[in-house]
Amino acid sequence: MMISKVKNAMSTLVGGMMPHGHHHHHNHHSGGGQTCGPDSLPPRFPYGRPDFLDLTPELLQYSTEHASRPVLTLKRDSRLPWRTGYAEVINAGKSMLNEDQASCEKLFVKKPSGKHRNSTLQEDNGDGTGIPLHFWGVFDGHAGSGAAIMASKLLHRLIRDRLGEICHLLENPTSVPPICLAKNGSPYQAETKKGAAQEPEDPDAISDSTVRFHMEKVVSLESLVMGVIETAFSQMDDLIEKEKTSYAISGGCCALAAIHLMGKLYVANAGDSRAIIIRNNEVIPMTNEFTPESERQRLQYLGFLRPELLGNEFTHIEFPRRIQHSELGKKMLYRDHSMTGWAYKTIVEDDLKFPLIYGEGKKARVMATIGVTRGLGDHDLKVYNSNIYIKPFLSCVPEVMVYNLDENKHGPDDVLVMGTDGLWDVTTDREVADAVSAYLSCCDPSDPMRYTLAAQDLLMRSRGVLKERGWRLPNEKLGSGDDITVFVIPLAGHESET
Amino acid sequence: MMISKVKNAMSTLVGGMMPHGHHHHHNHHSGGGQTCGPDSLPPRFPYGRPDFLDLTPELLQYSTEHASRPVLTLKRDSRLPWRTGYAEVINAGKSMLNEDQASCEKLFVKKPSGKHRNSTLQEDNGDGTGIPLHFWGVFDGHAGSGAAIMASKLLHRLIRDRLGEICHLLENPTSVPPICLAKNGSPYQAETKKGAAQEPEDPDAISDSTVRFHMEKVVSLESLVMGVIETAFSQMDDLIEKEKTSYAISGGCCALAAIHLMGKLYVANAGDSRAIIIRNNEVIPMTNEFTPESERQRLQYLGFLRPELLGNEFTHIEFPRRIQHSELGKKMLYRDHSMTGWAYKTIVEDDLKFPLIYGEGKKARVMATIGVTRGLGDHDLKVYNSNIYIKPFLSCVPEVMVYNLDENKHGPDDVLVMGTDGLWDVTTDREVADAVSAYLSCCDPSDPMRYTLAAQDLLMRSRGVLKERGWRLPNEKLGSGDDITVFVIPLAGHESET
Repeated sequence: MMISKVKNAMSTLVGGMMPHGHHHHHNHHSGGGQTCGPDSLPPRFPYGRPDFLDLTPELLQYSTEHASRPVLTLKRDSRLPWRTGYAEVINAGKSMLNEDQASCEKLFVKKPSGKHRNSTLQEDNGDGTGIPLHFWGVFDGHAGSGAAIMASKLLHRLIRDRLGEICHLLENPTSVPPICLAKNGSPYQAETKKGAAQEPEDPDAISDSTVRFHMEKVVSLESLVMGVIETAFSQMDDLIEKEKTSYAISGGCCALAAIHLMGKLYVANAGDSRAIIIRNNEVIPMTNEFTPESERQRLQYLGFLRPELLGNEFTHIEFPRRIQHSELGKKMLYRDHSMTGWAYKTIVEDDLKFPLIYGEGKKARVMATIGVTRGLGDHDLKVYNSNIYIKPFLSCVPEVMVYNLDENKHGPDDVLVMGTDGLWDVTTDREVADAVSAYLSCCDPSDPMRYTLAAQDLLMRSRGVLKERGWRLPNEKLGSGDDITVFVIPLAGHESET
Repeated sequence: MMISKVKNAMSTLVGGMMPHGHHHHHNHHSGGGQTCGPDSLPPRFPYGRPDFLDLTPELLQYSTEHASRPVLTLKRDSRLPWRTGYAEVINAGKSMLNEDQASCEKLFVKKPSGKHRNSTLQEDNGDGTGIPLHFWGVFDGHAGSGAAIMASKLLHRLIRDRLGEICHLLENPTSVPPICLAKNGSPYQAETKKGAAQEPEDPDAISDSTVRFHMEKVVSLESLVMGVIETAFSQMDDLIEKEKTSYAISGGCCALAAIHLMGKLYVANAGDSRAIIIRNNEVIPMTNEFTPESERQRLQYLGFLRPELLGNEFTHIEFPRRIQHSELGKKMLYRDHSMTGWAYKTIVEDDLKFPLIYGEGKKARVMATIGVTRGLGDHDLKVYNSNIYIKPFLSCVPEVMVYNLDENKHGPDDVLVMGTDGLWDVTTDREVADAVSAYLSCCDPSDPMRYTLAAQDLLMRSRGVLKERGWRLPNEKLGSGDDITVFVIPLAGHESET
């Protein structure tokens, strides 16, 4: 039987590969061209599933079971902060291992102490002092799981450390963050008298510095936290690049993170994962997806301004299909970086190059290679059989949306759902909301497992059931063939936290 | 009295300037640096108010009366298509002439005939054949009225001519536009057999061309019309640049156009004018504004990728205020092209340059010069006292939104309101909707003047009344000091059209 053949092959492969966890394989996001560095380098972190699943080696192996695609959830005696629910399932064979990763952490934001000043990324010390910070992350890897694993281990620490640097501002949330800081971190007020050596003094000048500077934007603490998160994503990306010289860190990953800090939920998304809030069975989208289609104009603009990045093989102009040589001189529909609509242009030699953005929907690709346009890693991803790097077209900066938890009332069935694209490809926002709401309404509000059971239910629906013609949903449509990872996070969770 | 002094000075100036209509003056959008070309060049079009106002020379002079700021409307016996209402008022002295312009035209889209093939921009021939096209445009000029006047005379003809080129497609609205056209304009189907000379023939190839090309995007007729409008704006901008070698065409302008074609309303906006639909007293926004704040990231990205455009005087990084030399080495809040939030960075020498984007709200400027980031003209606008051109940072491409008129029912009080920023700066969308709805509900539905009276009412509210402390609204707030131009267009208008 086909199924058992796959199964046996898998066990062998997985068994043999586990310790090193880097190898060449491609998924639907990558047309290939991924080089994973010299095989002699050790992995930065070994392959595994999230620590909070607490898998035995046997269960870890079972988790890569493509034939039965077990839905893994938290154990009954495990507890994540806020009673967070979690479930995951591996793909239907498109990659050897589950390239999704996840993390869920409670951390504490502290001023960098003398002792730790130079050791960022330290393990969280558990003395419970500092400003509490909750973190949830889902990382959808492609072309290897190295970047996703590393991000799941370190991104939250980077965010915590960056927040530590503005800890003194967080401790005074009602005061406006100073625009300028002295080296010791205290607010620096440019003085009118003493500082005047550089500029001739105007005898009529008003000494009030806000008037003197003509304009001073007021920056909120909230936008400082957004800046911290954006900066931490960039640093995570830089760290992957840097450590690639010493370790094998394969592939890249989409990164979706939710951060709870001082009553606000910050949802940061770089890629095609998605998060929604379900409140009173209403859907509030908390992310936009970043794909070749949604970021077409940004990418075309870069290709237009920096044509050397296209390596003489691609054109920044989009066409609705490939052009044949025989069509030179004819007119064809096109759009460039500035257009939303389409117009006809006369085809010239240069238009015969492959379009930078090509394909529709889930099949849209940047330079025929990758189907997402934001994320971490991918530093040495190249167009197949060429020396053209994809990375300049990818952004590691997330879009951050803020939801004010404290300003809204939440019942036990109001949740944030975070999931990788495997979930959303087959289940719409509305269907997810209906399924979760229906499940939770039938479930004892005091059951510590209720959010994990809701997550599991979601995954069963989206994965489908294996029939002769593949994994099928109840409506006979094809289920998700992708890895799926989902968090179901109760919004009233921080109130119940002890 | 101050008022009569201004009045007399105005009459003199306007009287002397009318025939040539180009001269140096600055408005709130421009910090200066505008050069208007050699004085010897004649203007492309003389200064004037829209033809449909049918002003006598005396009334034209009266229209520039800054002291009384008369609200000009259509004459009682004038009729615009759809009974469109119109009103305008000049600014409170910031420029000599009214730099707003407007146009309202009914045109006919036809295949380019042999006779006219080489004479684009022809006057509309009135034989009434072809596909009817309605056009409304408001053009908010800055640093001179030349570009605004020229656009008000020609943009609609460019759009008509470009639509003429796809006339055969418009005549078959149910068929899908062909991706490729032969030189004679007929659909070109790349042939599998004959065209195969360039590519080795695959014996297994399926001869169906859609399969052969793997992917073919279906492009709707609607997105072709959007492309026509986008392209026509670009051509309008190129035409201004080209004709500047022979004519004096001063300044630049924001351009907002509404086009009715085959049951759909296309609203195209490049600048900070605004259009809203009011339906059942509900507001449907039909534009986004393009300003240094709304387009910050696009502009910063260009400055980052092409630093030579910043002329060693500006930095693409945004700071909340100017940095003093004494602050070198300190940390300051900043954000770059990729960020939405703010973070601290150590100040280096390069950060002492002036920020590319600086200021807040209506005072935000690109390179300290201009407060809008899309529009037509401005080809020789430079940063004051420098050789740095602003134009590369400006886009002439509009954002086009589509409203399906035929798919919605409209009563006589449902309208599209198009106005220059002078209106919206002092009156919110909601206030405009309430004022228009209230006015129209008291007004005889068969009165041919009702939409003009509603427009006039809107302008009176937004201009205010001259008191000792300037033009004041009923709530004592400052009225708009700007030029204001407004169309009130009944959405049921095309049904009543004879």
